[in-house]
Amino acid sequence: MTASPFDRKMMQRALELARLGWGKTSPNPMVGAVIVQGEQIVGEGYHPALGQPHAEVFALKAAQEAAQGATMYVTLEPCNHYGRTPPCTEAVIQHGIAKVVVGMVDPDPRVSGTGIQRLVEAGIEVVVGVETPACQQLNEAFIHRVTQCNPFGILKYAMTLDGKIATSTGNSAWITAKDSREFVYHIRAGVDGIIIGGNTLRRDNPHLTTHGISDRNPLRIVMSRSLDLPREANLWDIKNAPTLIFTERGANPDLKAHLLQKGIEIVELDSLQPLTVLQYLSKRDFSSVLWECGQKLAAAAINTGAVQKVMAFIAPKIIGGESAPSPVGDLGLLEMNKALNLNQVTLRQFKDDFLIQGYF
Amino acid sequence: MTASPFDRKMMQRALELARLGWGKTSPNPMVGAVIVQGEQIVGEGYHPALGQPHAEVFALKAAQEAAQGATMYVTLEPCNHYGRTPPCTEAVIQHGIAKVVVGMVDPDPRVSGTGIQRLVEAGIEVVVGVETPACQQLNEAFIHRVTQCNPFGILKYAMTLDGKIATSTGNSAWITAKDSREFVYHIRAGVDGIIIGGNTLRRDNPHLTTHGISDRNPLRIVMSRSLDLPREANLWDIKNAPTLIFTERGANPDLKAHLLQKGIEIVELDSLQPLTVLQYLSKRDFSSVLWECGQKLAAAAINTGAVQKVMAFIAPKIIGGESAPSPVGDLGLLEMNKALNLNQVTLRQFKDDFLIQGYF
Repeated sequence: MTASPFDRKMMQRALELARLGWGKTSPNPMVGAVIVQGEQIVGEGYHPALGQPHAEVFALKAAQEAAQGATMYVTLEPCNHYGRTPPCTEAVIQHGIAKVVVGMVDPDPRVSGTGIQRLVEAGIEVVVGVETPACQQLNEAFIHRVTQCNPFGILKYAMTLDGKIATSTGNSAWITAKDSREFVYHIRAGVDGIIIGGNTLRRDNPHLTTHGISDRNPLRIVMSRSLDLPREANLWDIKNAPTLIFTERGANPDLKAHLLQKGIEIVELDSLQPLTVLQYLSKRDFSSVLWECGQKLAAAAINTGAVQKVMAFIAPKIIGGESAPSPVGDLGLLEMNKALNLNQVTLRQFKDDFLIQGYF
Repeated sequence: MTASPFDRKMMQRALELARLGWGKTSPNPMVGAVIVQGEQIVGEGYHPALGQPHAEVFALKAAQEAAQGATMYVTLEPCNHYGRTPPCTEAVIQHGIAKVVVGMVDPDPRVSGTGIQRLVEAGIEVVVGVETPACQQLNEAFIHRVTQCNPFGILKYAMTLDGKIATSTGNSAWITAKDSREFVYHIRAGVDGIIIGGNTLRRDNPHLTTHGISDRNPLRIVMSRSLDLPREANLWDIKNAPTLIFTERGANPDLKAHLLQKGIEIVELDSLQPLTVLQYLSKRDFSSVLWECGQKLAAAAINTGAVQKVMAFIAPKIIGGESAPSPVGDLGLLEMNKALNLNQVTLRQFKDDFLIQGYF
């Protein structure tokens, strides 16, 4: 089937609604739904947060009787199983929806296609594949989690036009301008956790919050084998955002006691590696993590396969410095033709800075 | 005066003609001229190469009697002095041109404005300031040379998205893709010289030619204090392009004799520095040089004020490497807020790569 301009417009509206759940639905996906009679929208809905009803239910509730014989546009295949909420397929059927246009099939291999099948069996016309790339991109983290059973990893860094993330003395405030830094807050609001290493904490003493652009802050995660961390740090203030430290068993018991008292969560692993951290976060249903770390941890994360997406902010300035750090440490690649190519590369221009992003 | 769309269109045509002299006019500027009767173009011309007649002369020759009472659009103020050719102002006056629209005033402080003055005195209407930014950009090197008495310096580098110009073992073939490398050949065709250091020669053994996209190759320049260079290298083949080595007095006499015999030009300076090299090239009427060097020489060139423009090609790939080199070495800047900001920053997208460029 070829999607009509009207179909695409309705699915774009459903995507817009879905995005209202940005950062609030994990481990669920963001989903939006629009119900249409003729060319008139009679109901809209989105999944606002984990534990709340799904998009379809809100849209059906808004449409009431107008749902009878109507077409529903929904960004993701309606669920067909009892989870935190009853199956949406039943609600769709009960309200007499005549046709469902689905942005993308549920990527979860356990349920993929069963929602569509249920609707078809109930005599509902189902069309799949309108604005699919946009629907997939919106839930790239969700798709990765349910297919790979690991949180989606984004490596984010800001560098000068000569490839430096700090001066040779470690100073990095600030590389990028206000508007691109604010965009990072928005990215943070959409992930479940932000990971840094002990070096970044000691050197930058970051906040790693969304700075008020969202009422939600992701979990701030520090990886420190030695637990050789300062007694005072911005991350130890958990008034607005929680902090978790991964370390190895028995490291620095004094500081551990001090931090536990401040309410910091500390997880001791046998071996502290990006992979063991991901496995732990996966068990806590994390959909996504943002790596805002220095070059050593970034390289370890890439080499472990923990990074799926790279977001490189580039400021049009030159700082120089032979020993000034670059974003990625040793990957063991000695020939340029072994470089890791990024795919689906896109560019975004800010007032001063550029964002180049792509996927491994 | 406000330029009409027709005025701008004619000046853009004159700019197009001017660009046909790309790389062939130095130390002269590139200039284009269009003669118009009503809205009809009756003559066009450009300055094809050093020693050839100016744009105005070609356009007047093409227009013949139609120049009488016509309007001339010319990208640069017509010259009013006897140089390699007689003054264009006299030719314009003699052909009965009624109005001259000038893209930009001649930046040479010795003659600036005198051409316009001569035309006005002869009763010709003169309008200045149509498409001026484009006219200035076209001849940015010429403007720099005549106002600063030094060649215009462009630092060009290609780096990965993680800021590396080579792997930790020095391998750099290739970072960028074919189409962006070809654009570099075009840039090379437009400059008078390309400068590298001994390290780049030893490590990359580059050709530094325009690879056939132009019949012109700039002078290939090597800066090597020690003259510790290989006996065989691509730059020693001067069939298609000349090579000049700057070194210090008395360095490596054996190799010097060997290279002189191959037809390489060798210039011994008391102290080899970017500034002494520029002074020498300035005496040879160089308008522009392209720095395609490694990080140490790039840093020295920037710190000397030898670099006015930065062209950073960025490939969407990650190579990593703590000791892998970045484009710019030590500038002595220890705080990020001391970084050298680029101005008039523009972006160009190639099939795979990005070019971010700007001016100090």
